Amino acid sequence: MTKVTAQMSVSLDGFYAGPRFGGEPGDWLESAESAGFFRVTRWVIDAMAWRERQGFAGGEQDTASEIIAETFAAAGAYVMGRRMADGGEIPWGDEPPFRAPVFVVTHRSRDTLVRRGGTSFTYVTDGVASAIEQARSVAGGKNVAIAGGGELLRHVLKAGLLDELELHIVPVVLGTGMRLLDADLDLADKEAIELTPIRVIHTSQATHIRYAVNGRAALLLDDRGSGSGTP
Amino acid sequence: MTKVTAQMSVSLDGFYAGPRFGGEPGDWLESAESAGFFRVTRWVIDAMAWRERQGFAGGEQDTASEIIAETFAAAGAYVMGRRMADGGEIPWGDEPPFRAPVFVVTHRSRDTLVRRGGTSFTYVTDGVASAIEQARSVAGGKNVAIAGGGELLRHVLKAGLLDELELHIVPVVLGTGMRLLDADLDLADKEAIELTPIRVIHTSQATHIRYAVNGRAALLLDDRGSGSGTP
Repeated sequence: MTKVTAQMSVSLDGFYAGPRFGGEPGDWLESAESAGFFRVTRWVIDAMAWRERQGFAGGEQDTASEIIAETFAAAGAYVMGRRMADGGEIPWGDEPPFRAPVFVVTHRSRDTLVRRGGTSFTYVTDGVASAIEQARSVAGGKNVAIAGGGELLRHVLKAGLLDELELHIVPVVLGTGMRLLDADLDLADKEAIELTPIRVIHTSQATHIRYAVNGRAALLLDDRGSGSGTP
Repeated sequence: MTKVTAQMSVSLDGFYAGPRFGGEPGDWLESAESAGFFRVTRWVIDAMAWRERQGFAGGEQDTASEIIAETFAAAGAYVMGRRMADGGEIPWGDEPPFRAPVFVVTHRSRDTLVRRGGTSFTYVTDGVASAIEQARSVAGGKNVAIAGGGELLRHVLKAGLLDELELHIVPVVLGTGMRLLDADLDLADKEAIELTPIRVIHTSQATHIRYAVNGRAALLLDDRGSGSGTP
């Protein structure tokens, strides 16, 4: 059955990149935004670099490689934010790594862009729920993966459309930056989003926790602990 | 060798309690602050309730019980914030759960309070570093545990005085509240605090990750991934 999934690398304090860069695109690589982004995704780059170099399996690096391979393999289609799609258009080149249809949530209509290797970019202007439905219809029973960025992922979580969230929790505190789970989730007073961890894989570079998203629930008063230690 | 340690239960978005309550102390239990606090510490309460009820070991609840018991056993002395000490003074009663000397960081001088079972509260007015040194001198080679609250823990981390941090990451998104790792860590541009995960224990109620704190480090540009997918 098709699930709507998302995964993101985050620092221990919840950032997926440094503070948003407002300068010229050509200067992004030198920005604090990119410094944070490359720190939290270092485990991915290390795994890819290692795989190419060694050509054989084993150990932690291979665990990371397997998580990455599995993530790509599980997705039958992608939903992506406009900023990420624009930013990737040139570096991803003629044969982007998705090898599946990608639905880009945008305000500007544009013809579908077909790339080699099975990747296409379809620009959806009637909202994220529509993009997810279009992705579902071509996913062939595989998952619809929310490819990011963080703002889109948060929007999908907030709208109750996300079935699974995998966080790659990286052992670094960035202190500031773009936070995945920030305050605009529209939770009411004493309301929370409950999840169930369904898989944990750990290496020295990241703790990978996959959660099923149960949805919104009221925080019921549970004060059994308020008197602990009282004789 | 004595280490300075801390542990805290946090939501997936990094909160250890709901939004700070500003009303009368008697109304705290009904506040959003307490609702968040009791949600993220539910695994502790469940473990204690279960242990009392069952009187035998086994399964996840026992894992939680063992983590709690181990945390208490490893501490030879505690350092505590004034707000937490004041809040606990009545509910902890004549025989508080610490069974070791507690050094309370405060601005108000006060005589040492000696309780039954080995717990005492010594009020330290010359800062957190002094409180840690006083705790170290009586810890008998065991650890100095930063008992909280979050503000004190953050202060100790910021000052470079923390050796180990254990987070109990609870599968809930609170959306708002008192955040353990917030922006006042005084990190410079492209600077981070690096950690090394040294133990991970997982149950359905929480993922317990213990980190060694390596300290501040510059985020070096690592852009090997910027061209990934380019042929």
